[in-house]
Amino acid sequence: MAKIQSKKNTTKKEIIIEKAARLFREKGFGAASMRDLAETVGVEAASLYNHIQSKSEILQAICFKVANEFISHLEKIEMSGEPTLKKMETIIRLHIRMMLEQYEFVYISDHEWRHLPEPYLSNFLNQRRSYRKRLGDIIEEGIHKNEMKDIEPSVAVLTILSAISGIESWQRSRKSINAETLESNMVKYLIEGLKK
Amino acid sequence: MAKIQSKKNTTKKEIIIEKAARLFREKGFGAASMRDLAETVGVEAASLYNHIQSKSEILQAICFKVANEFISHLEKIEMSGEPTLKKMETIIRLHIRMMLEQYEFVYISDHEWRHLPEPYLSNFLNQRRSYRKRLGDIIEEGIHKNEMKDIEPSVAVLTILSAISGIESWQRSRKSINAETLESNMVKYLIEGLKK
Repeated sequence: MAKIQSKKNTTKKEIIIEKAARLFREKGFGAASMRDLAETVGVEAASLYNHIQSKSEILQAICFKVANEFISHLEKIEMSGEPTLKKMETIIRLHIRMMLEQYEFVYISDHEWRHLPEPYLSNFLNQRRSYRKRLGDIIEEGIHKNEMKDIEPSVAVLTILSAISGIESWQRSRKSINAETLESNMVKYLIEGLKK
Repeated sequence: MAKIQSKKNTTKKEIIIEKAARLFREKGFGAASMRDLAETVGVEAASLYNHIQSKSEILQAICFKVANEFISHLEKIEMSGEPTLKKMETIIRLHIRMMLEQYEFVYISDHEWRHLPEPYLSNFLNQRRSYRKRLGDIIEEGIHKNEMKDIEPSVAVLTILSAISGIESWQRSRKSINAETLESNMVKYLIEGLKK
């Protein structure tokens, strides 16, 4: 029976989760089975269970890994003392980079969170709501300090996060523009649009 | 057996397609059956077939109705002789209004087109590519005329259309801001972001 190959510093569990992220994106979480996952990883289904208990455990790992990444960065940015526009630029760049470099994970966390079991589902949604609120607070401060245009903060947050999630269609496309051009131009549009 | 109720100026086929759009969005095109549709419309499955042949026929009707709406507006706008920023504002407003007022149709056309059979699929994708290219051309002209910032046109188009499709999450939310606030602030952000 094949063994799960692990690179240095990557646990077998991490490898399984990475392969699962891709499988879930391609087939959908609901349609992907543990049998499919075993096939993708290249082992017998039984040996998967030495590392993970269920599809749901993998989904939780992915959703909360992405959430933690965004939240821990936001905390640093909030405390940075930078001007509000600079803060938003850093956040926008992080979101774009995540869509470029950790696409499968961000995709699952954006689209498949509905399948999280309770209490994880409520917890995840609360964190997401709170995260968006905190982005809105930075924009509100920016407007107050006359650094940003007077755009309703929740609409600005919706516009920014939705625009960035559109990088999904770039990921699926023939990529006639490169990642760098995409990042710099999207940042320019979204930041100049906020700037007073 | 119940008859399909039709309002004045609305054919029975149109009523079926409207109910189908909602059903497809809620269940997904793949999972929704003709039996589900008959139940939603309130008739026997057999009587549906007096009006439509298949799920696929409904999907085609929805996708091409939305595409036609956008394309016919774009043609008028292109010929209008307005400044490029005004052209883009009109287009952005139309897209936002469609997301607000014909949400189910736009949603299906955005997410379920993959299920179109050939030759409709290729035709739909060609139209979509051409539509985005023509929006990019307006932006390119705007940059050339010094009316717009120098943002790579295809990235600007991706940013605009993705931002607007984010209204999906507003549609599913508690709508703490109203449609008017959403529209005016999103237009402001996206237009001021383009403006030189």
